[in-house]
Amino acid sequence: MVATVTPLHRKSVPSLDPMIQLVAADMNQVNKVILARMQSDVPLIPELAGHLIAGGGKRMRPMLTLACARLLDYPGGRHHKLAAAVEFIHTATLLHDDVVDGSGLRRGRRTANIIWGNPASVLVGDFLFSRAFELMVEDGSLRVLKTLSHASAVIAEGEVNQLTAQRRIETSEERYLDIIGAKTAALFAAACRIAAIVAERDLAIEDALDSYGRNLGIAFQLVDDAIDYASDEATMGKDAGDDFRDGKVTLPVILAHARGSDAERRFWREAMEGHRTSDADLAHATGLLAQTDAIADTLDRARHYGQRAIDALAGVGSGPAKAALVEAVEFAVARAY
Amino acid sequence: MVATVTPLHRKSVPSLDPMIQLVAADMNQVNKVILARMQSDVPLIPELAGHLIAGGGKRMRPMLTLACARLLDYPGGRHHKLAAAVEFIHTATLLHDDVVDGSGLRRGRRTANIIWGNPASVLVGDFLFSRAFELMVEDGSLRVLKTLSHASAVIAEGEVNQLTAQRRIETSEERYLDIIGAKTAALFAAACRIAAIVAERDLAIEDALDSYGRNLGIAFQLVDDAIDYASDEATMGKDAGDDFRDGKVTLPVILAHARGSDAERRFWREAMEGHRTSDADLAHATGLLAQTDAIADTLDRARHYGQRAIDALAGVGSGPAKAALVEAVEFAVARAY
Repeated sequence: MVATVTPLHRKSVPSLDPMIQLVAADMNQVNKVILARMQSDVPLIPELAGHLIAGGGKRMRPMLTLACARLLDYPGGRHHKLAAAVEFIHTATLLHDDVVDGSGLRRGRRTANIIWGNPASVLVGDFLFSRAFELMVEDGSLRVLKTLSHASAVIAEGEVNQLTAQRRIETSEERYLDIIGAKTAALFAAACRIAAIVAERDLAIEDALDSYGRNLGIAFQLVDDAIDYASDEATMGKDAGDDFRDGKVTLPVILAHARGSDAERRFWREAMEGHRTSDADLAHATGLLAQTDAIADTLDRARHYGQRAIDALAGVGSGPAKAALVEAVEFAVARAY
Repeated sequence: MVATVTPLHRKSVPSLDPMIQLVAADMNQVNKVILARMQSDVPLIPELAGHLIAGGGKRMRPMLTLACARLLDYPGGRHHKLAAAVEFIHTATLLHDDVVDGSGLRRGRRTANIIWGNPASVLVGDFLFSRAFELMVEDGSLRVLKTLSHASAVIAEGEVNQLTAQRRIETSEERYLDIIGAKTAALFAAACRIAAIVAERDLAIEDALDSYGRNLGIAFQLVDDAIDYASDEATMGKDAGDDFRDGKVTLPVILAHARGSDAERRFWREAMEGHRTSDADLAHATGLLAQTDAIADTLDRARHYGQRAIDALAGVGSGPAKAALVEAVEFAVARAY
C-alpha cells in the first residue's frame, strides 16, 4: 500500500500567477492600447517610453483594474483603455522618479535618464501623463477622471513630501505612512476603484475596492522598503542599499533608529545625512536592522495592511477572481522571505 | 487761435493694457482660484509654485480665455477655474522647461530649479499639472478636458521634438514651425477655444478662436526667438543669447544659415554644436543676423501670423473685447521694435 499525498489547495508559496492568468486575455487588449497610444511622430517618444513599458514590469496596477472588474463580473471593455491610462500614469511617475533620484538601474536595466538623459525623461513622462488623460477623456467618465486626476495630484504631493523628508532621520512613522500612502497606495487604490465605476456598482463597493488597493499598496511599499536592504540586482533589479545611500528614511530605518543605542542613532543620522555610504556602512546598517528586528517588524506591519486589504473585500464577489486578488496580497507580503 | 491736436484713436505703440483692463475683474477671480488651488499640506509646493506664479508673468494664456469669453458675451463664471487650469498647465511646463534647459533666470528672477533644485521643480510641475486636471474635472466639460489634455500631449511632443532638434543646424523652417506650433501655439489655441466651449457657441466659432490663438502663439514665439538675440536681462528677464548658447535652432538662425556664405554656415554649425559660446561669438552671430536680414524677416513672418490671427476673428464679436484682442496681436508682434 502506498501513502497518498494530498496536495494542499493553496501552494505553499503564494504567487501572482492566478491573477496573471485571470486577466491574460484582457491584458492583451491593454497592451494593444499601450502600444498604440505611446506612438508619436517624434521617434524619441515611443523609443524611450517603450524601454520602460516593455522593460519587464509586472503591470501590477492595470492588472488590479482588470482583476477587480472581473471580481464584479463587468462584461464590457471600457476598462482596457483605463487600465492603459493607469499604466501610463505609473510609467510617467517612474520616469520622473528616476530623474529625481538620479537612479541608474530599474528592473535590472539601465534607466531611461541614463540612456537618453534627464530632459528626455522629464518630457516623455509629461507626454505619457497627458496621454493618460486623453485616454480617460475618450472613455468619458467624469468619475474616473476625478479619481485619477486626484490620485495624480496626491502622488506628486507624496513625492514632494518624500523629497523634503529625505536625509531627515527625525521623520516619524506617521509621516512615512503619509508618504507611501500618497506616492504608492493612491494609485493602487484608484486602479481598483475605477473598476467599480465602470461596472456601475454602488459607492460601498467602490470604497471597498479602494480600501483593498490602498492597503495592498502600503503593504507592497513596506515590503519594497525592506527588500531594499536585502536585494541585489538579481532579486530586485535595482542596487541593494539605494535607499540607504539616497538617505531615504524608510520604516526599517525609523524602527532601527528609534530602538538603537545613542551610538547607533548617531550612525543612522550620519548615514541618512550622506556620511556613511560605503559597503561596510551598508553591512553595518543591515546588521543593526537585524539586531533591532526592524526588518521583521516592517514585514509584520506589511502583513497587517495586507490583512486589511483582504478583509476589505469581505462580501465582495467570489470565485477565482476573489481568490486571485487575495493571493496577490499574500504574494506581495511574502516577497521578502 | 490755437491749433488743436486731434489725438489718434489708436496709441502709436500697441499695448496689452486694453486687454488687461477688459479682464481685470475676471482675472481677480482667476487669481483667487490659482492661489487657493496651489495650496498643499506639503509646504514646499505653494512655496515653489508661488515663486513662479507670483513672479511677474503676464498671465497671457488665462487672459486670452477671459478676453475670448468676453468677446462672446459669456455671462457665467465657469471660465475662471478653467483659466486657472490653463495657467497651471503653463506653469508646469515652465518648471519642466527650466529643468530641461538648465535655465538660471526667468522673468528677471532666479529660476525655481536653481533655488530648490531640479527634483522639486519636476515634482511640483507634476503637481500643478494634476491640479489643472482636477480643476477641469470639477468644471465637468468633457470637451474642455479633451481640448486641454490633447494640447498638453502636443506640448510635450513639441518639447521632445525641440530637444531632438537641438544643436542640429540642418533643422528646417517647417520643423521649426512644427515645434513652436506644438510647444507654444497649442496652448494659446486651447486657451481661446475653451472660451467658446463654455459659452456654448458653435464649432465655427470654436475653430475661429482656436485659429486666432494658434496664429497669435506662433507670432508670439517668433518674436520671442528674435528678441533672444537682442535682449538683456532688463528687457526680457532672461539672458541674451540663451538660445544661441543652448544650440536652439530658431528661425533667425535657420534664415541666417541658409543665406550665409560657406564660412558663415560653418560658423553657425559650430555655434549650434556648442563650440562658439563666447560673447564675441554672440556678437558675431548678431552681426550675421543683421547682415542677412534674418531678424527683420523673422519679425516679418511674425506679422504674417499676426495678421492671420486678426483675420480669424472676422465676423466674431465686436466692441472693446474685439479691439483688445486685435491690439494684443499688434502688441505681440511690435514687442521687438
